[in-house]
Amino acid sequence: MTTAASPNQVPPTFRATDVIRKKRDAVELSRDEIEVFVNAYTKGDIPDYQVSAWLMAVVLRGMTRPETAALTDAMLRSGEVLDLSSLSARKVDKHSTGGVGDKTSLVLAPLVAAAGVAVPMISGRGLGHTGGTLDKLEAIPGFNVNLPVSKFRRVLETCGCSMIGQTAEIAPADRKLYALRDVTATVESPYLICASIMSKKLAEGIDALLLDVKTGSGAFMKSEKDAAFLAELMVETGERMGKQMVALITDMDQPLGQMIGNALEVIECVEIMQGKGPADLRELCLELAGWMLYLGGASKSVAEGKKKSVDLISSGAALEKFRQMIELQDGDPRIIDDFKRLPHAQHTLEVKSANAGFIASMQCEQIGTACVILGGGREKKEDSVDPAVGIVLHKKVGDRVEAGEPLATIHYNSETKAGRAQRLIESSIEVAEAAPAKRLLVHKVIGASS
Amino acid sequence: MTTAASPNQVPPTFRATDVIRKKRDAVELSRDEIEVFVNAYTKGDIPDYQVSAWLMAVVLRGMTRPETAALTDAMLRSGEVLDLSSLSARKVDKHSTGGVGDKTSLVLAPLVAAAGVAVPMISGRGLGHTGGTLDKLEAIPGFNVNLPVSKFRRVLETCGCSMIGQTAEIAPADRKLYALRDVTATVESPYLICASIMSKKLAEGIDALLLDVKTGSGAFMKSEKDAAFLAELMVETGERMGKQMVALITDMDQPLGQMIGNALEVIECVEIMQGKGPADLRELCLELAGWMLYLGGASKSVAEGKKKSVDLISSGAALEKFRQMIELQDGDPRIIDDFKRLPHAQHTLEVKSANAGFIASMQCEQIGTACVILGGGREKKEDSVDPAVGIVLHKKVGDRVEAGEPLATIHYNSETKAGRAQRLIESSIEVAEAAPAKRLLVHKVIGASS
Repeated sequence: MTTAASPNQVPPTFRATDVIRKKRDAVELSRDEIEVFVNAYTKGDIPDYQVSAWLMAVVLRGMTRPETAALTDAMLRSGEVLDLSSLSARKVDKHSTGGVGDKTSLVLAPLVAAAGVAVPMISGRGLGHTGGTLDKLEAIPGFNVNLPVSKFRRVLETCGCSMIGQTAEIAPADRKLYALRDVTATVESPYLICASIMSKKLAEGIDALLLDVKTGSGAFMKSEKDAAFLAELMVETGERMGKQMVALITDMDQPLGQMIGNALEVIECVEIMQGKGPADLRELCLELAGWMLYLGGASKSVAEGKKKSVDLISSGAALEKFRQMIELQDGDPRIIDDFKRLPHAQHTLEVKSANAGFIASMQCEQIGTACVILGGGREKKEDSVDPAVGIVLHKKVGDRVEAGEPLATIHYNSETKAGRAQRLIESSIEVAEAAPAKRLLVHKVIGASS
Repeated sequence: MTTAASPNQVPPTFRATDVIRKKRDAVELSRDEIEVFVNAYTKGDIPDYQVSAWLMAVVLRGMTRPETAALTDAMLRSGEVLDLSSLSARKVDKHSTGGVGDKTSLVLAPLVAAAGVAVPMISGRGLGHTGGTLDKLEAIPGFNVNLPVSKFRRVLETCGCSMIGQTAEIAPADRKLYALRDVTATVESPYLICASIMSKKLAEGIDALLLDVKTGSGAFMKSEKDAAFLAELMVETGERMGKQMVALITDMDQPLGQMIGNALEVIECVEIMQGKGPADLRELCLELAGWMLYLGGASKSVAEGKKKSVDLISSGAALEKFRQMIELQDGDPRIIDDFKRLPHAQHTLEVKSANAGFIASMQCEQIGTACVILGGGREKKEDSVDPAVGIVLHKKVGDRVEAGEPLATIHYNSETKAGRAQRLIESSIEVAEAAPAKRLLVHKVIGASS
């Protein structure tokens, strides 16, 4: 690193327009140029209008792998990087690109911690058709996701896992850049998505990161090709920064599990940890846990990690860890034994099948949107969320259904919203005469040889 | 036009991000979308950071012809459009994309006006290596380029031509957009250049416009292909807006004429109107005047227009018109008969040829830069200009030169600046054993069949 790269000063010869022009003309930027640009923007020394022009050039010109790593690194180092070296356990986290009914984090953190691997998990809120881990956790009465770093560390040391929201100290460059991307149509770039995710995750001070990159009608990356491209980019970027990385491309062509909505999803997670719950959610949790145990050094293979995870569920160790974490983060652990202590909607309404046949497909994004309409998600960042509402699916793709049989139950607090959600769900579920070909839950593994 | 296109209000459903996203994804924007976007920006209802992202998308995605015309139209109508219908004469203007020693406007306005065609000319200042018409006019003591529109109209009515700078009322959208482009590396787009030029020129209330698009080492468009693309774009845009349009692609691979520098160029223009001056400048002035007379209905063909122009110079009518315009715009017309009344530099210095041979080429942009170094041009918009300094070329491409013979004379007021200019000029002029192939002065005519 040359002196020009010091994050504390903009070199006198530095011109933001040169950085914009180079990216416009697809000339590779140096690590120093990217670092100075990001730092100057974070400090307010470069105006929004120059950065938004640069972001659009990145969207349309792309970035090389070294540029992507340099951007991630600069964003990561714009704020605090947690030092968890005092924890003797290996530290592993999982990140999902987001989906409908995607609730694995609530199972994985306690399950993997029960195996002796530390899971310092910093998560986000739901936006658009996808839910967010923080909203699910906050459905648990009292649960505090806004811990200061000192308490986050204490919870981690005590029970091996802790789940919080992003603090102001972590990757401020990402927060500023993301707000600008949101209003300049520059969100949809795999390079910028990669840098945004990885800068926050690597600020957790982890040793390894498992990525769950979703593909299908409920994912941000609808095509498997786009999902694989993003996954490879993130894996390579993490590896360039010295982290152990694995990405799984997993199916999001229908909601994961049966429950969608914050309190409902907490119930489903507890059921998984009780050895019950829907098969697809259980299978994906075990697959991801297997990888996390392997990455965390708690098993010699993924298969062994999966087997160990099955045992940790059977023994009740995972659920016990969950109970402990809820308690340490000021939540009410009694919800585990008494779901009625969770918020619940005033009314329910059944969506019935008009025809007999097989569930051929689900327009997964629309089902997520139906939950947002009910009040269970956000259209805009500022929206508040109703933890009680949601949807319980009684049928999944490939299931046999009779005419008049319930497809789903809507949990709602507003009649008009329920009507809109009902129509959307009806139009989202396709019933056909023949059963469709079965889609794999895990499409592909990127970045490891196990 | 739908009601949504009213320039006075942003429709409630309008979202700037939709316009940015469409351009990003190369989806054609409607006339309404472009109009609302430009008007909202001009009024301050859309922030710079959204517009700069959009500008970068335009640079990288381009624009269709209807989009380019819609953008030009919206920028034009963001301000005042002069109504010169009270003038019975046809109104014709000429615009040059800029070059070194490019001074034809000072000859063309009076010459074409002498033929009975009105020339309402609104010009710009020099920037970078190219000079500007306003700076040249201001070398004439007292000459006022900042006339209010009412006086501009009066001068036009009295003598048939007037030359002023852009007023605050004309195309404010262009002024705001240009300032933003300048700091976001989004200047270099033919679509944005076209809209910027055409919106200002068409605000003059003209019937026809002649474009002099320069190509070669001293032009902004170095390649003839780029110059022709811009020329075709501007011709089509003007025609879509109901104007008669012709573009000439002309040579700027060496300076035009012999003199570079504001007062020096005024002298050379007077000499042309006296029937003297260098051959290339005379030839281009007559060619452009021929076209302007033809477009203005003062001749049945370009050839006849050229012949008429020769006569108007011989008879002294063109020079008389120049004298009249100077007087009406508060300048000292005695400079015409006494060049010593123009500003002149304190010192001169000769640049001599090291070798004998033929002038093989000139790096024209560097010669323009040498004039800027002397103080005769601007590096930044805020710089002031020394009207007296400049360069007189004694040799042009193809001329025979002996070792030690003067290539150019530098007119300067600062010793150190003169030394830098001298070295730059020396390195810009290539002397070779054989004479180079002759380049045509007019490479191509676009947009007319005469």
